[in-house]
Amino acid sequence: MTEKLVVIGGDAAGMSAASQARRRRGPEELEIVAFERGNYTSYSACGIPYLLGGTVDDLADLVVRTPDEFRERQSIDVRIRHEVTEIDLDARKVVVRNLEDGSGSVEGFDILHIATGARPIRPPWPGIESEGVFGVQVLGDVEAIQEYMHRHQPRRAVIVGGGYIGLEMAEAMAARDLSVTLVENAPEPMRTVDPDMGAAIRQAMEEIGCEVRTGVTAQGFESTEGRVRAVATDHGDVEADIVVLGLGVEPNAQLAAAAGLEIGTSGAIAVDRRMLTSAEGVYSAGDCAEKFHRVSRRGVAIALGTHANKEGRVAGVNMGGGYETFPGVVGTAAVKVCDVEVARTGLNEAEAAAAGFEYFTTIAESTTRAGYLPGAKQVKIKLVVEVGTGRLLGAQIVGEENAAKRIDAFAAMLWHEMTVDDIMHVDLAYAPPLAPAWDPVLIVARKAWERLERSRGDA
Amino acid sequence: MTEKLVVIGGDAAGMSAASQARRRRGPEELEIVAFERGNYTSYSACGIPYLLGGTVDDLADLVVRTPDEFRERQSIDVRIRHEVTEIDLDARKVVVRNLEDGSGSVEGFDILHIATGARPIRPPWPGIESEGVFGVQVLGDVEAIQEYMHRHQPRRAVIVGGGYIGLEMAEAMAARDLSVTLVENAPEPMRTVDPDMGAAIRQAMEEIGCEVRTGVTAQGFESTEGRVRAVATDHGDVEADIVVLGLGVEPNAQLAAAAGLEIGTSGAIAVDRRMLTSAEGVYSAGDCAEKFHRVSRRGVAIALGTHANKEGRVAGVNMGGGYETFPGVVGTAAVKVCDVEVARTGLNEAEAAAAGFEYFTTIAESTTRAGYLPGAKQVKIKLVVEVGTGRLLGAQIVGEENAAKRIDAFAAMLWHEMTVDDIMHVDLAYAPPLAPAWDPVLIVARKAWERLERSRGDA
Repeated sequence: MTEKLVVIGGDAAGMSAASQARRRRGPEELEIVAFERGNYTSYSACGIPYLLGGTVDDLADLVVRTPDEFRERQSIDVRIRHEVTEIDLDARKVVVRNLEDGSGSVEGFDILHIATGARPIRPPWPGIESEGVFGVQVLGDVEAIQEYMHRHQPRRAVIVGGGYIGLEMAEAMAARDLSVTLVENAPEPMRTVDPDMGAAIRQAMEEIGCEVRTGVTAQGFESTEGRVRAVATDHGDVEADIVVLGLGVEPNAQLAAAAGLEIGTSGAIAVDRRMLTSAEGVYSAGDCAEKFHRVSRRGVAIALGTHANKEGRVAGVNMGGGYETFPGVVGTAAVKVCDVEVARTGLNEAEAAAAGFEYFTTIAESTTRAGYLPGAKQVKIKLVVEVGTGRLLGAQIVGEENAAKRIDAFAAMLWHEMTVDDIMHVDLAYAPPLAPAWDPVLIVARKAWERLERSRGDA
Repeated sequence: MTEKLVVIGGDAAGMSAASQARRRRGPEELEIVAFERGNYTSYSACGIPYLLGGTVDDLADLVVRTPDEFRERQSIDVRIRHEVTEIDLDARKVVVRNLEDGSGSVEGFDILHIATGARPIRPPWPGIESEGVFGVQVLGDVEAIQEYMHRHQPRRAVIVGGGYIGLEMAEAMAARDLSVTLVENAPEPMRTVDPDMGAAIRQAMEEIGCEVRTGVTAQGFESTEGRVRAVATDHGDVEADIVVLGLGVEPNAQLAAAAGLEIGTSGAIAVDRRMLTSAEGVYSAGDCAEKFHRVSRRGVAIALGTHANKEGRVAGVNMGGGYETFPGVVGTAAVKVCDVEVARTGLNEAEAAAAGFEYFTTIAESTTRAGYLPGAKQVKIKLVVEVGTGRLLGAQIVGEENAAKRIDAFAAMLWHEMTVDDIMHVDLAYAPPLAPAWDPVLIVARKAWERLERSRGDA
């Protein structure tokens, strides 16, 4: 008997799951229907700033696979511009609205996969609905922004919020020759790293001519004839012809919550190791699904394409009749703004404290190549280390020349709860153009170990 | 009572140990005398090719700390141009020759640290003593090569052996506008990676105008009036005005062996976890000391500055009265030739077979950035994976744009014997300018896992 899989959401988490399920079960065994609210499937949302900044020419470059390709190559019935408005778990069906003609329909399912993603946070500030205030999350946002820029030729862009997207969008707008102001209420941009590491990002932004106003809280938007003309803040108005919200995103979990599915403390849909929700045969993956953080041992909501791909694949294997588990995340993230790269993994100071760890921190500065080679760049690494045990809890890196990808070694080290005693001895690659004989990763671990040893000596 | 530490060898492994010991025990407690055969202490031997190629201007840039600095800042009595010719373990003394005046002396010790390093392999081929045939290992070799080049203005350089040093020296000679031929008897340069990965290095060498002759065995040297004029091979003579040997190095363990110290199967000095040799109070570290390979579980001889630094530090902590162990190596190494980077960790195919593993290999090609971004470079990764368990045994990477340092994540993964099932889920950093959403490291692990799963299905 043919079963039917309904997928809600046509991006990474949805379509990688659909593809995996199809690899394991052919069309005669499993019918697959995927509903996507927008116009595109399987695209790189993370590529949006590069498209807007002009680094990527064509929107189509960001699309990995089109609806037609899914239909023809994999017999997956993708319906774009179709929004699922309700899930009925008892009746095993979803209610669907065709956004083209407004018509409604009902689709039954045996297996359901919820991959509704995340949406940019839009606080209920006065004027937030003004024309010219954009969030950035789906490919449709690009078209809206491009159309607005073409029509109104804005000269002053204000980015509200200095997270990953905010920084990338600030760089993109500067690349389009707009005068850019970044408004952030924290002491430094990018709060996912500690303020002492965030200062380098401010500097990088300022070097490309971006004005960075930290400690400034946006409160609303002023508009003229419905079109934004300024961001209102606790330090006065900041004039703006276009505004991009970079306040982070939140999981799109309402549909699931309304259906009675369990929602985690993070606000994302609760799932088990196999990406199964609280209801039988109902899976979820990607930005809308909660992740287990291996260091804090808590459920977290993290919107990242790399997780969406991995989780989607795991869900797909299970929906296809296989067995596969997702082991969780360690909170790795990175961003590159001009030449400056920033990366983090594990817990930062605030997160370590919130998770109940007692910790100390160590910072070391070094270079990306042997110091005697021309072109060696600075790299600064901060570790958050558990008191007593020396266990690595988190790492943050700021620097140039692929400094950020050095975080991967720490991510692998966190996987097995390594201590700084071990880390400083790990056999990392050395060649003068690639690293100093003591790699920066080892230097900071050694420095943390020395501090640990002194504290042990004192005890 | 004051004890006396004698250090043989004034480079990384010797002087980092001396410095550590000094940090823990002041001059009133521990007298430290270090003998160095050459003119320099604590220098980067790995920087030699960059000095010869002109990337580094000044020999002094490679010297981290001079004998005077050791004497003044750390009360370490460094005697350069002094060679230790004999160790008498019973009498607890060493016999020393002053290379300046030929005079001899005897120095007693309570603690001895042997850091005699390695020497370039010089096979007993006819003509090897010809003028113009150089090995590259110590800073003195630079001066000899520079002096020879200045005097004879060679136009044709032949590099015999395509290992790390051979490749770096070939690039250096090409940078000096010499016509360069690399002669290697293996099928591809750099035998520490498998031939299917080494092909990319050949291509990189050829792109800088270097002639690469593989499958050609050097047999001797032709000379005129004592000066080299050709390398004799099984495929005829290769004309040469200067020859650099890149045949690898071997541990300088004769002095230790003559004193009756245990030598490991690798030919290097046997040491325990604390870098203690078979004799009480006698330590060894660096290129002359055997390393425990954590994957093969065998003793290996690997000459690398990064190990020398780490081991020297461990020996120094122990000689200074502390307790510290060195956990061994996983065989990580890297080289950059022009824009092409090569790295390896763990075991290659030949090494895995020799260690008795049953394995399969998986190769995947990907890009260093999101494929849609301009400037994304190719990266190729090969894994050696244990049959049945899926345990990672080794990884090799060839590519550009910091491809090589991606090996560090694998090195950390090898530390804890991770399987490809785990590796493909590790939370590595993602941002479009830094990596695709599926990092190349994860892609190759996933591909290996798929193969493993198929083989399990078949079983």
